[in-house]
Amino acid sequence: MVVVMDEGASESQTEKVIAQLVAMGFDVHRSTGATRVILGAVGGRHDADPALVEMLDGVHEVVRITEPYKLASRSFKPAGTVVAVGDVRIGGDEVIVMAGPCSVESEGQVRAAAAAVRRAGAKVLRGGAFKPRSSPYSFQGLGEEGLRLLRWAADEHGLKVVSEVMDVSQVPLLDRYADILQVGARNMQNFTLLRELGLLRKPVLLKRGISATIEEWLLSSEYVLAGGNGDVILCERGIRTFENYTRNTLDISAIPVVKKLSHLPIIADPSHGTGRRDKVAPMARAAVAAGADGLIIEVHCDPDHALSDGAQSLFPAQFDRLMAELRIIAPAIGRSICVEPVARRGWAR
Amino acid sequence: MVVVMDEGASESQTEKVIAQLVAMGFDVHRSTGATRVILGAVGGRHDADPALVEMLDGVHEVVRITEPYKLASRSFKPAGTVVAVGDVRIGGDEVIVMAGPCSVESEGQVRAAAAAVRRAGAKVLRGGAFKPRSSPYSFQGLGEEGLRLLRWAADEHGLKVVSEVMDVSQVPLLDRYADILQVGARNMQNFTLLRELGLLRKPVLLKRGISATIEEWLLSSEYVLAGGNGDVILCERGIRTFENYTRNTLDISAIPVVKKLSHLPIIADPSHGTGRRDKVAPMARAAVAAGADGLIIEVHCDPDHALSDGAQSLFPAQFDRLMAELRIIAPAIGRSICVEPVARRGWAR
Amino acid sequence: MVVVMDEGASESQTEKVIAQLVAMGFDVHRSTGATRVILGAVGGRHDADPALVEMLDGVHEVVRITEPYKLASRSFKPAGTVVAVGDVRIGGDEVIVMAGPCSVESEGQVRAAAAAVRRAGAKVLRGGAFKPRSSPYSFQGLGEEGLRLLRWAADEHGLKVVSEVMDVSQVPLLDRYADILQVGARNMQNFTLLRELGLLRKPVLLKRGISATIEEWLLSSEYVLAGGNGDVILCERGIRTFENYTRNTLDISAIPVVKKLSHLPIIADPSHGTGRRDKVAPMARAAVAAGADGLIIEVHCDPDHALSDGAQSLFPAQFDRLMAELRIIAPAIGRSICVEPVARRGWAR
Amino acid sequence: MVVVMDEGASESQTEKVIAQLVAMGFDVHRSTGATRVILGAVGGRHDADPALVEMLDGVHEVVRITEPYKLASRSFKPAGTVVAVGDVRIGGDEVIVMAGPCSVESEGQVRAAAAAVRRAGAKVLRGGAFKPRSSPYSFQGLGEEGLRLLRWAADEHGLKVVSEVMDVSQVPLLDRYADILQVGARNMQNFTLLRELGLLRKPVLLKRGISATIEEWLLSSEYVLAGGNGDVILCERGIRTFENYTRNTLDISAIPVVKKLSHLPIIADPSHGTGRRDKVAPMARAAVAAGADGLIIEVHCDPDHALSDGAQSLFPAQFDRLMAELRIIAPAIGRSICVEPVARRGWAR
Repeated sequence: MVVVMDEGASESQTEKVIAQLVAMGFDVHRSTGATRVILGAVGGRHDADPALVEMLDGVHEVVRITEPYKLASRSFKPAGTVVAVGDVRIGGDEVIVMAGPCSVESEGQVRAAAAAVRRAGAKVLRGGAFKPRSSPYSFQGLGEEGLRLLRWAADEHGLKVVSEVMDVSQVPLLDRYADILQVGARNMQNFTLLRELGLLRKPVLLKRGISATIEEWLLSSEYVLAGGNGDVILCERGIRTFENYTRNTLDISAIPVVKKLSHLPIIADPSHGTGRRDKVAPMARAAVAAGADGLIIEVHCDPDHALSDGAQSLFPAQFDRLMAELRIIAPAIGRSICVEPVARRGWAR
Repeated sequence: MVVVMDEGASESQTEKVIAQLVAMGFDVHRSTGATRVILGAVGGRHDADPALVEMLDGVHEVVRITEPYKLASRSFKPAGTVVAVGDVRIGGDEVIVMAGPCSVESEGQVRAAAAAVRRAGAKVLRGGAFKPRSSPYSFQGLGEEGLRLLRWAADEHGLKVVSEVMDVSQVPLLDRYADILQVGARNMQNFTLLRELGLLRKPVLLKRGISATIEEWLLSSEYVLAGGNGDVILCERGIRTFENYTRNTLDISAIPVVKKLSHLPIIADPSHGTGRRDKVAPMARAAVAAGADGLIIEVHCDPDHALSDGAQSLFPAQFDRLMAELRIIAPAIGRSICVEPVARRGWAR
Repeated sequence: MVVVMDEGASESQTEKVIAQLVAMGFDVHRSTGATRVILGAVGGRHDADPALVEMLDGVHEVVRITEPYKLASRSFKPAGTVVAVGDVRIGGDEVIVMAGPCSVESEGQVRAAAAAVRRAGAKVLRGGAFKPRSSPYSFQGLGEEGLRLLRWAADEHGLKVVSEVMDVSQVPLLDRYADILQVGARNMQNFTLLRELGLLRKPVLLKRGISATIEEWLLSSEYVLAGGNGDVILCERGIRTFENYTRNTLDISAIPVVKKLSHLPIIADPSHGTGRRDKVAPMARAAVAAGADGLIIEVHCDPDHALSDGAQSLFPAQFDRLMAELRIIAPAIGRSICVEPVARRGWAR
Repeated sequence: MVVVMDEGASESQTEKVIAQLVAMGFDVHRSTGATRVILGAVGGRHDADPALVEMLDGVHEVVRITEPYKLASRSFKPAGTVVAVGDVRIGGDEVIVMAGPCSVESEGQVRAAAAAVRRAGAKVLRGGAFKPRSSPYSFQGLGEEGLRLLRWAADEHGLKVVSEVMDVSQVPLLDRYADILQVGARNMQNFTLLRELGLLRKPVLLKRGISATIEEWLLSSEYVLAGGNGDVILCERGIRTFENYTRNTLDISAIPVVKKLSHLPIIADPSHGTGRRDKVAPMARAAVAAGADGLIIEVHCDPDHALSDGAQSLFPAQFDRLMAELRIIAPAIGRSICVEPVARRGWAR
């Protein structure tokens, strides 16, 4: 913490501030300038509240200097983390694409989607079994049956599974069916859930809250890391701004920022980030060009009849075309995207 | 839903849109103007997704017309709801003030706070037993022991109790000790929790999420109301904006807006809304002047040593003075604030 | 400026930072802690760019400490500024209300409005002669003829005049007719205009830009003050946030914040701040309760036929009622609002 | 305009609304559903204020349906506009890069920058002669001398010139020296300036205001187009959001949105959009991947000693590398970026 005193602060005011800092566990270094005193305070408790010092008489400004997250910071672990899910490595040289329907609706739907996304080069199948909906009157998901269908379709096509866990009580269920447990934007600060996931030994995909700063997001990842689970994948999915032509503003700049601050891999969700099918491909390309380690994209073989989020789901042909574009872009940043044309044909039949 | 077709939309495009609307359960009224066709669609399913129509060819714009909340809307219940907690009536003529420490820390602390706020005219004692904290390294609350102390101090001074429930698993515990269960801003869209509270027969104080629109907030209240629990009190506590001199921007205009859209009572939290002690009184006065049904304010007898949020807690003398100012303001909007000088002395001993 | 070095920063990195700070004109105080070095830099040039230091190797964070505004800060002038316009004193004990139509439309309209607002206790007549409009196809104002009518109606009823200046070229014209020159939100950073107004000897009403931080707003006032014109009145008129039920979010908390940071008087504009007639009175009351020195409100005798902003204009009877409410509230913060019942009758004939 | 009546609206309320719409010049189509009446209103005046109808009794909601901009809309001109500046075509198959220093500081500086950016493939030289600065105490630019140096350096290297015009009074001067006149973000709604530029026959680069919606931005372009100047280039340069790790949030999604709504070319400014050198390349790549027609980037041969914005300027070697990356990305969206290796060597000596 750095405390800047007022220009006319008295000696006794300064001493009172020093006493408070010491009481909070800090070592204090005093620097007396021509017009002001500056106090550098190091080593205090993690939860020391700068506002307590800010309220003291004679204090001009208080600045916190230690990032409150530790395990998530790149200075803690300079090399980037690679989250491995079997042979799928998120954070490595390959840009990993996760794709599939918003919600699992039926066996036919999820199998068709799995086949389509596998053919195009996706490595992970996404799909929701429990849907958090703003309105209590909307479709709420198939539950465990949905997870079973998702797992089956993924296994049939050699894909991994990512699906959302909405509550602590659902953790064992998701753990049984999914390879990656997704924490939705609304749960980014559900600390009870995050703590529980910290005890798991399975990757967690942590979406950024709609109005979370990057610091708050990294702090949330810290809850998982602090529990001993180091496999956290961050996912930018759009922030709320005054502009509402698109549902959210996908914060592409968060990608290079997170890359600098943290060692954790980061992917982007252009489907929720825009809410409109025709904006998904441009934003997916932008995310990869900006350095994202992967993407999570909604693909539906019949989006017009999807029970949720149909308007933001790509048709398989659109997804194929996007993957081809991404294969051109990836080398610009020293990355690649899976092709496997032969295996592909094999899987698809 | 109203669908506005493009100026040059073809007849077959229009017919395809009508077919989609009918498939979604709507009755469609067609209005053909000189340059455009407008389709009025009424009576469809609650969860009909306007975006599905928006993606069709020839569609210029789609506008949703039914508010997605029903039970919370003033048109559903024109008279304002009064939430009664014993003889304390929130939403009636009296402006109800809830006050107390951020967290319960010790018996002495909570008893002193209860005495101080009761003396000044508060009717409800606030205090957290479980603290949701952004950082896993911060003080997390006393748990059930905190609730017990809070209940005891409140009973001693004739106050009601409001305290936060952070998770479904805590509902029975909070139900045992508190008169009003508070849902924090981060949980505003924890639908599992809201549904559970809908089954309770106890008032729920629902804080607005930091980036929630008023519509989303009312929709969240709908989860509780739909369960059969009609006693929801809304609480404005600041939204996130680009301005960060104060921690949040207390959205005072939300007060008259909610009053028009909904029958539910609304109070304001100037402590979390500003995060700074010296801004609490001006914003508390503003909230009452704008028509709030009450306030929830942090008061601590020794804020400099509070374990959480000390910087935004009022000293008892500041709280006394604020209550005196509020007594002047309340009549401007046809309200009053409790005085009871004799009873007061009695309680305070 | 305070520079916090990385935990593992090398001595040569630290020395390079010190050299850069010295080159920028700073005195540097070095404080070496157990884990980090902190550099306190004081006395540099006003326009020193912290980002230049931020980019150097080994730098963890750079914090600017001197507020970039000087003349506007309360530390420069501890007592509050009172802007006097004849016998009308803005920033004194009385809450000053400025009212009138959005645009001057006709002699009859402006005279009726002047009579109505004077009767209710307003001291200044507002009205636009040049209207900045987002669309080039909208009504653009009466120009000089509008100013003439405004002046005449104001003189007839013993009122002062405030009107907007949109461009440097209009300054002499406005100077001829108005007592206070208003700078609109869109012009808050029109530095050419601000500099010109700094040379004037007439009060300037400086509206906050729709997305301006409080610091940027005070910096803009500094352009006027630096020219030698000390009579700046700040006006909060709403900021742009994600919530768009109201046109803007009137930032009531800016009132106590500005009162602490600056000596300049601050008023609020609840008409533009909300854009809706039924929200004007609650927000006007809130602003006064929060400590505003005045209000600027749109009043129109026939708002349904106003050529601009009719929907946010109060009817005279609504304005009367609001003024009565404000008279109850003002004493809560040690202020008053003009009554003059006899003179009032006199003026009203 | 579409007017949705309340569920219980009376016949006389509906008729009053219809009368108001007719008075505003609309043809009204009435659609009576089971629970509500919907009124479709077409053909009214451009400046008809929906809020006037919104205030009437019985009105549930009013929705504007005609976009207020016309000349800028893609429906007005389905094919994309290509702005030609000599042989440089903005909006065509080639991605055009404009680059150079933030401010012109000296002959040596601008010539070195021109040589460097030309060598790497830029087609237009950027550089400010008049700098709008938030603080009155900062460097304000070289004025006409700066323009002269910029023109000279550009001509020497076969580049076009883009430079900012801050005020109506500067239009003739800029017209003399620059090929493209840039309107800064703060002037996006300086309608006097926009109108003047509409009379010019020279391309205008219109930056998006820091808090402008896409609709407001297109409306501002309409002021230029309505004057008869069809050569408007839009420039996304970051919006203000709650996240302030980067100076602004570059709204990459605005690129595909504008491409759909308007025929005008759009470029991006990753330098001002991020404010940090190390974020410029990722965001430049993202903008091109999302479909931008060009970029405007700050390059300085000695950024550490730049008089303004040094921290966001690229070194020439960084710019070279970025251009190489962009050449890989452009084909993914069917575009190219200039190479000209021979001519390049020629120019570079």
